Amino acid sequence: MTFDLALALDLLGVFFFAVSGSLLAARKGFDLVGSLLLGSMVGLGGGVVRDVIINNGVPAAFSNPIYLVPALVAAMVVYLLPRGVERTGRLLLVFDAGGLALFCITGTLKALGAGLNPVAAILLGVTTAVGGGILRDITANEVPRLFDPTDLYAIPAFLGAGLTTLLFHLDALNLATGSAVAAAVFAFRVLSLKFGWHAPLAARSWRVPRRTGHSVGHG
Amino acid sequence: MTFDLALALDLLGVFFFAVSGSLLAARKGFDLVGSLLLGSMVGLGGGVVRDVIINNGVPAAFSNPIYLVPALVAAMVVYLLPRGVERTGRLLLVFDAGGLALFCITGTLKALGAGLNPVAAILLGVTTAVGGGILRDITANEVPRLFDPTDLYAIPAFLGAGLTTLLFHLDALNLATGSAVAAAVFAFRVLSLKFGWHAPLAARSWRVPRRTGHSVGHG
Amino acid sequence: MTFDLALALDLLGVFFFAVSGSLLAARKGFDLVGSLLLGSMVGLGGGVVRDVIINNGVPAAFSNPIYLVPALVAAMVVYLLPRGVERTGRLLLVFDAGGLALFCITGTLKALGAGLNPVAAILLGVTTAVGGGILRDITANEVPRLFDPTDLYAIPAFLGAGLTTLLFHLDALNLATGSAVAAAVFAFRVLSLKFGWHAPLAARSWRVPRRTGHSVGHG
Repeated sequence: MTFDLALALDLLGVFFFAVSGSLLAARKGFDLVGSLLLGSMVGLGGGVVRDVIINNGVPAAFSNPIYLVPALVAAMVVYLLPRGVERTGRLLLVFDAGGLALFCITGTLKALGAGLNPVAAILLGVTTAVGGGILRDITANEVPRLFDPTDLYAIPAFLGAGLTTLLFHLDALNLATGSAVAAAVFAFRVLSLKFGWHAPLAARSWRVPRRTGHSVGHG
Repeated sequence: MTFDLALALDLLGVFFFAVSGSLLAARKGFDLVGSLLLGSMVGLGGGVVRDVIINNGVPAAFSNPIYLVPALVAAMVVYLLPRGVERTGRLLLVFDAGGLALFCITGTLKALGAGLNPVAAILLGVTTAVGGGILRDITANEVPRLFDPTDLYAIPAFLGAGLTTLLFHLDALNLATGSAVAAAVFAFRVLSLKFGWHAPLAARSWRVPRRTGHSVGHG
Repeated sequence: MTFDLALALDLLGVFFFAVSGSLLAARKGFDLVGSLLLGSMVGLGGGVVRDVIINNGVPAAFSNPIYLVPALVAAMVVYLLPRGVERTGRLLLVFDAGGLALFCITGTLKALGAGLNPVAAILLGVTTAVGGGILRDITANEVPRLFDPTDLYAIPAFLGAGLTTLLFHLDALNLATGSAVAAAVFAFRVLSLKFGWHAPLAARSWRVPRRTGHSVGHG
């Protein structure tokens, strides 16, 4: 992957997450400025956290103004959405899945490029991928989607970060294999939503609490 | 602006934000230690985030003990407030506006002083100005004031950061012009609260949701 | 204290906090992956914030894979807990107190080792000790335990960080004195829970609000 391709994928990931943030802003009745800010926070937050942890200078989101463009476009797109779209509640989750699929790859690549060991690169890739969504949901005063036990969120991100690291070390990461990883992560995440794939609960033998705010359907 | 003036304005901004944090702590029934900690988090949080992003050493809030003084004074002031003050709910917002007005200037100046480009300096100034308040409201388990669609919060901060950057590049930033910018940001923010100035909603054609926790009066 | 002892205490602190995170995940009905992630966030979050503020390279939690082991063990332990344990609500708080006792020492030591002044070292020790718990409670959409006015949380951490700094400067910090400090902090915290020791409220003369979500019993 050339640097420009990595940048393009990163910007596309920012756009996807920013749309999810602006959609949430719209659903919560925020104004256009709040939409732009929440979209920016979701789209750029994971990368800022990653860059701060890698510790190599001012994060790209601040030093390179081009990162603002996808957030601006996302706020505009959501502003122009026709009436009725808010009822398709899955739209936010689909864009969120797109951001997840791209950021677990680009985040891992940035960490590998900074010379981190494979385990650290995978952790940072996952942190990049889930960080923005955690910020989004905490800010909107909700339990982060990441912790919803009725689908899988982190596992696809770990898979994508792990495959990216493997391909990188095999020197086999290119546009085709990178796209295949992104597609696999996206499909895995969307299928887990559609079919309600889920992991075992955190405690094997406890009763599921009654009021968690989750529409749980497992036992 | 000399460095000492910048420090004085920064400390005054810390004091304003710390009062807003300690007032919230009082309203939530926290104790004096919680008041000091929430006030410190609000007053110092935005600057710590800025310094971590600029990436030039230990943030001033930690390395320079003088930054603790305004937070201590703020907790004391709120502790001694007479009964009945809690009913004037706008007091918190007035102190918050004072912090906003000063931090969008001092935050932008720190970023310019670290050699960042004008766009990055404006973004960091706004981040400094709104960061502490976001931390305050998230910690108090509320949707951040920043996202309330019934007034303007980020726009005055962008205005102040933009004017500061402009004056800096025109070499025209001094005590008089800096004070004028701070006064303009403060007045803009307070007037938007008083008259309910607001921006368009995030989505043009959606219905406003019924339960957002905001006392919305717009359509 | 040798470096290895510091590492061992740090890992033990990660384990204690990670158990508190995984217990909360279990109580909230999260799945095993969410338990691992919340436990990791609580166990490692305070240290990551500290390392980012000290600004000396990639945080240990990312660069050194051994830090993942206690979080994995904690998630496993909670997964295997027998039915009924969730009713002993104090279990989470006891593990939290263990993490607090260790992290206010190890966090202060890391800051002193990085050459920070005593006040900054104490502040960073406290930040390390309370940071993970704040992240845990914000993520679980609750007012952080730190702000509960019915017991003392930050004061034991300040005590531990202060004593650590004092012993360090007296060149008297060793396994025995360090253990004594940890035991004192732990005992102080647990006793404040048991006997409801508390600090004065944030505002002397205000009425305590009716709905804070805290089971307050003081006036």
